[in-house]
Amino acid sequence: MINRQWRLCRRPTSSPAVENLEFSEAPVATPADGEVLVRNIYLSLDPSNRLWMSEREQYMPPVALGDVMRGITLAVVEQTRSDRLAVGDIVMATAGWEDFSVLSARAVQKLQPVDGVPLSAYLSVLGPTGLTAYFGVTDIARPQAGEVMVVSAAAGAVGSLAGQIGKILGCRVVGIAGGPDKCRWLTETLGFDGAIDYRAGSVAQRLDTLCPDGVDIDFENVGGEIMEAVYGRLRLHGRLVLCGMISAYQQEGGIPGPRDFSRVLMQRLSIRGFIVTDYLARSAEAADALSRWIGEGRLQWRDEIVPGLEHAPTAMHRLFTGDHQGKLMVAVSAPPDG
Amino acid sequence: MINRQWRLCRRPTSSPAVENLEFSEAPVATPADGEVLVRNIYLSLDPSNRLWMSEREQYMPPVALGDVMRGITLAVVEQTRSDRLAVGDIVMATAGWEDFSVLSARAVQKLQPVDGVPLSAYLSVLGPTGLTAYFGVTDIARPQAGEVMVVSAAAGAVGSLAGQIGKILGCRVVGIAGGPDKCRWLTETLGFDGAIDYRAGSVAQRLDTLCPDGVDIDFENVGGEIMEAVYGRLRLHGRLVLCGMISAYQQEGGIPGPRDFSRVLMQRLSIRGFIVTDYLARSAEAADALSRWIGEGRLQWRDEIVPGLEHAPTAMHRLFTGDHQGKLMVAVSAPPDG
Repeated sequence: MINRQWRLCRRPTSSPAVENLEFSEAPVATPADGEVLVRNIYLSLDPSNRLWMSEREQYMPPVALGDVMRGITLAVVEQTRSDRLAVGDIVMATAGWEDFSVLSARAVQKLQPVDGVPLSAYLSVLGPTGLTAYFGVTDIARPQAGEVMVVSAAAGAVGSLAGQIGKILGCRVVGIAGGPDKCRWLTETLGFDGAIDYRAGSVAQRLDTLCPDGVDIDFENVGGEIMEAVYGRLRLHGRLVLCGMISAYQQEGGIPGPRDFSRVLMQRLSIRGFIVTDYLARSAEAADALSRWIGEGRLQWRDEIVPGLEHAPTAMHRLFTGDHQGKLMVAVSAPPDG
Repeated sequence: MINRQWRLCRRPTSSPAVENLEFSEAPVATPADGEVLVRNIYLSLDPSNRLWMSEREQYMPPVALGDVMRGITLAVVEQTRSDRLAVGDIVMATAGWEDFSVLSARAVQKLQPVDGVPLSAYLSVLGPTGLTAYFGVTDIARPQAGEVMVVSAAAGAVGSLAGQIGKILGCRVVGIAGGPDKCRWLTETLGFDGAIDYRAGSVAQRLDTLCPDGVDIDFENVGGEIMEAVYGRLRLHGRLVLCGMISAYQQEGGIPGPRDFSRVLMQRLSIRGFIVTDYLARSAEAADALSRWIGEGRLQWRDEIVPGLEHAPTAMHRLFTGDHQGKLMVAVSAPPDG
C-alpha cells in the first residue's frame, strides 16, 4: 500500500505557497507496540499550520525540514497494537498531511460520533474550532449581557462561532470580514448585529458608526491594523482576547503590539492570549454546550471540504487570501459507511 | 488668611519642570453647605501628577490651565459645614497643591490614625501607594509560591512594597532600579532575591543571569525598553501587571506596546492595566493585611518628606530623575500635636 505524503521542503518566507511542500510517496508504515495505523479521512487546515512551517517561537516545535507536514486529522483506525483502540474506531489526532499515519495510541482522541451529525463537524464546530470559540468567549472574554463584542475574521471558522456564542450570551456583536457576501452571511444568516467589510473602506470609521460608545471585547483573530482599530476603541475594563494573529503568521519578524500601550493602563484593559490545547481537559463541557446550541438551532457553521490530499497546499493558501467561508478542510479518504 | 497655591500655567512637553507651574497667593475660601475647609499637611507626589498636567487620554480629566494643580493630600479639617466631618478630623482627599482646600465632605475619606504610626504612612504604605501594591500583586498578578516576579522601579514607593508582598506570598523577586544604593537597599534591607541596576549595563543580560528560566510576573512601573526586556522573558502563562509607565508620561505621543506581540498568543500571556481607584471599596482588606505585615516586621517602607509647599515642583522633578527612594511627599504644614 502506498502512502502519499506532503513533506516540508522549504520554510516559507511569506505565503505558505505550494513550492514549500513536496508531494511524495512512501510505503505505509507498520505500527509498533502501543501504536495504531490510521487512515486519515479529513485534514484540518488552520492558520497555525503556517506557524508550524516556520521557525518562529510558537507553542509546538516547528516541523523539521524533510518531515511530513503536521496536521490535525479525523481518522479511522485500520490496525491496532494497543488495548486502547479497536479497528474501526474514529479518532482525532495530531497526525500529518498523508493518507495513513502511525501514531501512539495514547496521543489520539477517540470520538463517539452521534448519528445525524456529519463526521466533519468533529473537526469544526464540535472539534478544536468549536472549543477555541467556546473557551475564548466564555473563559477569556467572559462577556456580560449587553456588552459590545467585535470579532475579526468573523466569517472564519472560529470567528463565526465566537460571534454567535457572544450573541447567545447577550452581547451586541459586530463582525469584521472581507467582502459583501461574508458580511451578509454574518448579519442575515448568523444574526450578527453588524458587519464591517474591511476591503470596502476604513474599519475605524465603520467602528465609530456601529459602536459609537466603544467596544468591550475584541475577539481578535487577525492582528495588525484591524486589531489596532478595535483596540483603540476598547473602553473601560475592555478585554482583548488574542485568539489568533493571522496577519502575522506570514511575516517572519515579530508583529508589534498596540501603538498606544498606555491605554492598557488608562482604560484598565486586559489582554490575554490563549490556545485551545490548554482547555482539552474541559472539552466535554464545551461539547455539551455546543451540541445543545446546535440542537436549539442557535449555532450554525459551515464546513468547506476540499476533495483530494493532492490539493492541500492550494487549499491552505485560501486561508490566507480569505477565499473561503467557515471551516476549511481536505477530504483525504472516504468516511466509513460513506 | 493667605492660601499659597501652585497653579498650572503651561502644559509640559517633556519633564514637569518648574516653569509649568506658577506660585501665587489667594485668600482662603469659605466652605459652603456640605463642604469643609481643610489645611493640607502632606501632599503626595506621584507619577500620575505628570499625567494630570497633560491633555493625553487618562483616567481623570486633565487639570485645566490656570487651575490649582491637583494632588492627593493628607489634611486636617479646620471648618465644617457638614455632619459627616468635625473640626480636627484627619482626612485624605483629592485636593490641590495649596495650603488650604475647600472640598465636598462627601469626596474626602476620614482616617482613623493609630498611635505609633506616623501620619505620613497614611499617604504611603497605608494609603494609595500600599493599596496599589497590594491589589496589583494579590488581585492582578495572583502569584503562586515559587514563581519568579520582576519589579521595575523597584525602589520606588509602589515597587518596593510590591516586591516585598511578592516575597511574602512566596515568589522569587528581582527588582530593577537605578544605581547601586537602591539595589543594595532592595537586596540587603528589603530581602529581594536579586537587583538589577539599569544604569550599569544590559538589563536583558542581567535578567538572563538572574532569571535563567524566564519570568512569571512582570510588575511593571516603567514601560519602554525595561518593560521590553522583561516581557521578552515572560514564560508560559506569564502575567504583565501594568501598574505604571513612568517612562511614557513625559512623552506626549503614545508609547508602543511590546515589539513581538505574538508572544502573548504563543506563551498565553496576560496583560492587565489597573488603577487603585478601582479598588477603593476593598481598601479595608488591604489595610488589614498591610498593617499585619508591618506589625510582623515583614514590610518596610520609606517616606521621603520634602519640607515646604514652595518646593513641590522641584521635588516632583525628582520622581522622574529617580533621585529619591520610597514615597515622595511634601510637608505643607505641621501635623496636629506635632
